[in-house]
Amino acid sequence: MTERVEIVKKILDSNERLALNNQALLDNHGILGLNIMASPGAGKTSFILQTIKRLPPGLRLGVIEGDTAPVTIDADKVLAAGMPAVQINTGGECHLDAVMMESALQALPLAELDLVIVENVGNLICPAAFKLGTHANLLVASIPEGDDKPYKYPNIYRDLQVLIVNKIDLKPYIDFRMDYFIQGVRALNPGLVIFELSCKTGEGFEAWTNWLVSQVKARKQEA
Amino acid sequence: MTERVEIVKKILDSNERLALNNQALLDNHGILGLNIMASPGAGKTSFILQTIKRLPPGLRLGVIEGDTAPVTIDADKVLAAGMPAVQINTGGECHLDAVMMESALQALPLAELDLVIVENVGNLICPAAFKLGTHANLLVASIPEGDDKPYKYPNIYRDLQVLIVNKIDLKPYIDFRMDYFIQGVRALNPGLVIFELSCKTGEGFEAWTNWLVSQVKARKQEA
Repeated sequence: MTERVEIVKKILDSNERLALNNQALLDNHGILGLNIMASPGAGKTSFILQTIKRLPPGLRLGVIEGDTAPVTIDADKVLAAGMPAVQINTGGECHLDAVMMESALQALPLAELDLVIVENVGNLICPAAFKLGTHANLLVASIPEGDDKPYKYPNIYRDLQVLIVNKIDLKPYIDFRMDYFIQGVRALNPGLVIFELSCKTGEGFEAWTNWLVSQVKARKQEA
Repeated sequence: MTERVEIVKKILDSNERLALNNQALLDNHGILGLNIMASPGAGKTSFILQTIKRLPPGLRLGVIEGDTAPVTIDADKVLAAGMPAVQINTGGECHLDAVMMESALQALPLAELDLVIVENVGNLICPAAFKLGTHANLLVASIPEGDDKPYKYPNIYRDLQVLIVNKIDLKPYIDFRMDYFIQGVRALNPGLVIFELSCKTGEGFEAWTNWLVSQVKARKQEA
């Protein structure tokens, strides 16, 4: 058992070193990197597509699509929206890691980009443990998943910078106690930036995209 | 890389041996074992609670609750519903395995039970690879998760015996193409038994519980 723990620790250490390299590469290009995580079906791809629609002209975004199977459904949608996309098939693995991120970054036209969004594999457990080299972790939660998720999957909420509460258009039809949910989130992560929105109606998107654009500009100025 | 694959294969082999022991233990007691998997928030616990309500008097059910964190929210609900429940905290792991199942079975009053339901960790990837020793795998999918899930998470659909399509009360508010979803499911698993239902309204539960009771009886007769 001790040996197994030792091996896992070594894998994580070497992943962390590679993640730092990835982040340095993004920094050299003045690019903001965003790692988007979520449960399957919370709306990650819709969220990315709706964000693309609302970006100011000239802000260039590249998307890395992580999938556990060799399907390009999500990457095709991003390409159709006019942005460069790279698909990573994890071959059954439940998360992306810094090695996969490194090869995906090499396939993107970094010199032309301001923002790289990574859509991680749909999973609330495994992606939390593997740094990719992005500047911020964002979780897309959604009303139909229920208000107890921060209590049940605390690890993923602890290491977030942004939380999107999606599908607020479904509030009238679902028993979701927003107070209980936010209380659970704040207990794990007091400083978290939270946006409530709907990818279907567009409600709440303005606040989110304004914030995102300000973060992209701040990163450019630091570079 | 080869070494890593070898280690993973050995873990799976030894898990499979233990799973056979667990199944033999259930068989000796004439108990049907059901492994319930789902994405976080698809409604596994509600589905178990609504099933308990509709079981014929005298049919005794024990529940094993798998959680990635030390919270007993789900196990408490099952206990409140009057059935024995055991909680397994996987300590951050993304799935249950046959070792955890073995210790949970030891904590249940098997001599008094007809059915054991295992609520696996909320995850569409990891639980698919680890047999527990149950007789059937059941997946709770839900309308808000979207109709593309069988295409994106094929492995979990391949090794199922029962599929529950939950939250059909939300159909009017969500773009979910049932044809496209079922087509993807059938391509992976032609013989799958499928029930569409709603844990909120109770619609569709009668067909499911009738089927479940017939399976419990068949298992008793084989014992």
